[in-house]
Amino acid sequence: MSNILSPRIGIAGITGRLGQLCAEEAGPHLAGGLSRTADPARHITSEADALGRECDVIIDVSHASLVPTHARAFTQAGCAWVLGTTGLDAAAQHAVEQAAEHIAVLQAANFSPALTMLLSLARQLGAALPDYDAEIVETHHRQKLDAPSGTALAIGRAVAAGREAEFEQVKRLDQNGKRPDGAIGFASLRGGQVIGEHELRFLTTDEEITLSHRALDRRVFARGALKAALWLAQPHRKAGLYSMQDVLNTP
Amino acid sequence: MSNILSPRIGIAGITGRLGQLCAEEAGPHLAGGLSRTADPARHITSEADALGRECDVIIDVSHASLVPTHARAFTQAGCAWVLGTTGLDAAAQHAVEQAAEHIAVLQAANFSPALTMLLSLARQLGAALPDYDAEIVETHHRQKLDAPSGTALAIGRAVAAGREAEFEQVKRLDQNGKRPDGAIGFASLRGGQVIGEHELRFLTTDEEITLSHRALDRRVFARGALKAALWLAQPHRKAGLYSMQDVLNTP
Amino acid sequence: MSNILSPRIGIAGITGRLGQLCAEEAGPHLAGGLSRTADPARHITSEADALGRECDVIIDVSHASLVPTHARAFTQAGCAWVLGTTGLDAAAQHAVEQAAEHIAVLQAANFSPALTMLLSLARQLGAALPDYDAEIVETHHRQKLDAPSGTALAIGRAVAAGREAEFEQVKRLDQNGKRPDGAIGFASLRGGQVIGEHELRFLTTDEEITLSHRALDRRVFARGALKAALWLAQPHRKAGLYSMQDVLNTP
Amino acid sequence: MSNILSPRIGIAGITGRLGQLCAEEAGPHLAGGLSRTADPARHITSEADALGRECDVIIDVSHASLVPTHARAFTQAGCAWVLGTTGLDAAAQHAVEQAAEHIAVLQAANFSPALTMLLSLARQLGAALPDYDAEIVETHHRQKLDAPSGTALAIGRAVAAGREAEFEQVKRLDQNGKRPDGAIGFASLRGGQVIGEHELRFLTTDEEITLSHRALDRRVFARGALKAALWLAQPHRKAGLYSMQDVLNTP
Repeated sequence: MSNILSPRIGIAGITGRLGQLCAEEAGPHLAGGLSRTADPARHITSEADALGRECDVIIDVSHASLVPTHARAFTQAGCAWVLGTTGLDAAAQHAVEQAAEHIAVLQAANFSPALTMLLSLARQLGAALPDYDAEIVETHHRQKLDAPSGTALAIGRAVAAGREAEFEQVKRLDQNGKRPDGAIGFASLRGGQVIGEHELRFLTTDEEITLSHRALDRRVFARGALKAALWLAQPHRKAGLYSMQDVLNTP
Repeated sequence: MSNILSPRIGIAGITGRLGQLCAEEAGPHLAGGLSRTADPARHITSEADALGRECDVIIDVSHASLVPTHARAFTQAGCAWVLGTTGLDAAAQHAVEQAAEHIAVLQAANFSPALTMLLSLARQLGAALPDYDAEIVETHHRQKLDAPSGTALAIGRAVAAGREAEFEQVKRLDQNGKRPDGAIGFASLRGGQVIGEHELRFLTTDEEITLSHRALDRRVFARGALKAALWLAQPHRKAGLYSMQDVLNTP
Repeated sequence: MSNILSPRIGIAGITGRLGQLCAEEAGPHLAGGLSRTADPARHITSEADALGRECDVIIDVSHASLVPTHARAFTQAGCAWVLGTTGLDAAAQHAVEQAAEHIAVLQAANFSPALTMLLSLARQLGAALPDYDAEIVETHHRQKLDAPSGTALAIGRAVAAGREAEFEQVKRLDQNGKRPDGAIGFASLRGGQVIGEHELRFLTTDEEITLSHRALDRRVFARGALKAALWLAQPHRKAGLYSMQDVLNTP
Repeated sequence: MSNILSPRIGIAGITGRLGQLCAEEAGPHLAGGLSRTADPARHITSEADALGRECDVIIDVSHASLVPTHARAFTQAGCAWVLGTTGLDAAAQHAVEQAAEHIAVLQAANFSPALTMLLSLARQLGAALPDYDAEIVETHHRQKLDAPSGTALAIGRAVAAGREAEFEQVKRLDQNGKRPDGAIGFASLRGGQVIGEHELRFLTTDEEITLSHRALDRRVFARGALKAALWLAQPHRKAGLYSMQDVLNTP
């Protein structure tokens, strides 16, 4: 493995929007990319094991369907694997966990450092303030078709985890009718070109605490993925399944 | 009619929660109240015309079903009428308008000075920024059963009026699916003992403007009703139908 | 003068950051630019009267010291003049007013449509809620050296104007000590690359109303300047001194 | 010591505003109070050791000057001690630490559960996001004379502790001039009857995270003090110096 100060980084899914931003952030660390169509002039291969052999760590922002193939290839190559793909089925998730027995794997739905912290803090608030009413409101650009956002649901899951509650039983998508004790409510706004705003409020009779996050530039996700890759590629990093919480050293 | 500096004020619905607050705010101006059950010891009558004859102005926070009776009685008595009852049917609304040909009537769904301003400013923003996405989010205490709040809908109607749009055709209660151009979106949060928070956002690609209001004490509605009564009882006030906008001298 | 649908627009100060953005926004309407150094290949002249003769309207984002020269040249040429330069001395301001007797001039410190509205609404709130405490907080990028921002002061001036108060006598830059009745307080935050956030709060015992604005992209100023230019270049526009309020048809 | 479910609670400083609220919250647990002037009819003594002997736990919201006396008396009596007095000099603080070798002592500058959490989360954000710009803004009622608030400074200290920085070297009270790297900025607003709002923002180029707290009723401090007393009076609680963080089980 190369020197800690200069790991060779590969990008799986390099031709996608996030992949391109990751390549820009990687700068001099960039050793190559992986895509369906190879492009040797730009150091892009279509073979996962070829990329794995060239790199100390792969940032994978490709597609859930490719996860089992990548798991095999990167395990074989012995490189570290930063996995940002979401929507994995059970088999794909199993492949990730198998790989983590042999190589260092970091899996995250979102690489933003502040959002990673928000999820951690949300869980802590859920545990410490069990009888406060938790409400989540998110705002996204006018083109977004689904509501609430995946990140809003992840925040809700963090609060429920802190409360040792079953998320599906406490989530409240419709604010009509009686608010059940312990419910976690959701609301959504759409407009402009908002990249992503999330707000988590804990309300009770005599006080209120709110956690909020705003993404200002999609580059934050690429910057976070690079941070994760540099952390994961450190020579002393053992095989195992890591999260962004580990990178930020937060519980 | 009595001196402008010291009008005699009556409260219709004096035994209700808001009526009691109005009586407290009226202080030395309080001349009597109206309720289903008379209580002479506390200057409470059950006869609208009797109260009308004793007062320069009546603050009416009783019930929509009593509006036609009050219209007749206060017209006869020649007192001014501050009407805060909501949910009037067509016949009751007609009675109000008839009364306004003979006495000074001020009708308002909400007496808060700042909320009155917010409705006025919302209409102006709707007119000036027709292509910005308008979104409204409201928060109320955990006991509230309906969503969105009546005030949130009133804000939406003000924006639509500014845009000369039909409110029912542009309101958007569900944020799933494609956001239509010109839509006015709504979202609701429930928790704690929040008296009422309303936020109106206008979003576009490169900027955003937000109007927000927070009621901190229900007394604000009583204080506003008193302000309206003092304004309406001025000797030079002519017969006619007024609004809180007139009191605040805002368009 | 050319057709209303396609006015020829010139940019004074075209090589500055805002000038370049204005040129991009002007697109097919762009007829030429003015700069210290002429560049005929890019239709940039160093002669104000030459540019004036070629254009229906000039967007001027150059420098306060050039205002008297431009006033003379554009008056002579008979073109309309959108003036966004700030920091004019008395002589320069007088030159602007002289020009406005012969040509259509629109002078604005800020072309953002939403901020223009905020200033108008701030004045109205100042007038309608004279006894509420007004406080202004602004946030800008970490490089900004002065505080409070010019826009924050402009908002304070609008509130004072609504109250018919002398701004210099009511502004409060230090929040230590007793808050005088009628004061307008200021606070500043610095961090990240925030382009500009401004918040105006009106607080009283039982309620609160807040107006807030966020610039998300500097392009908003160029977009607003173009909107102003298209409005000012309409053939029926008479000589006179206009403001962004006129463009948005707000009081 | 009495049963865990029904500890006998005493209030030192029972005639002060916060002491009275604490007495109300304590309800059936209330065993007596301590004040300069004894009032046997209301179970108020002027002797700290007398109160200590009657109670399982004392909530002390009296005055810093009384701390050494109370430390001696409560140690002697063997009761637990919830200490909310602030402004202790070195000798008083030493007396507290001495007492904690013999009895259970919980010391807190603020008993609000959510604010306790905010301080904990602020420290964690300071540690995890060392290169984000931290800014704190607080709002209080118009009568408050000093700025920034003690709680705002405590939040700043928590961020500095997370960063292992010397607070006095990084605090920034004036936002004019160049913002030093690592600075923690402060801003204050004053108006209305705001009990206390605090906001901590972490800003960087591409994202932002904010923690905010709002006290809605002073009762929150009394409710938190009672929560602390019930926790501290549990029979298994050992001698030692505890904090509100321990009550909420947060790091």
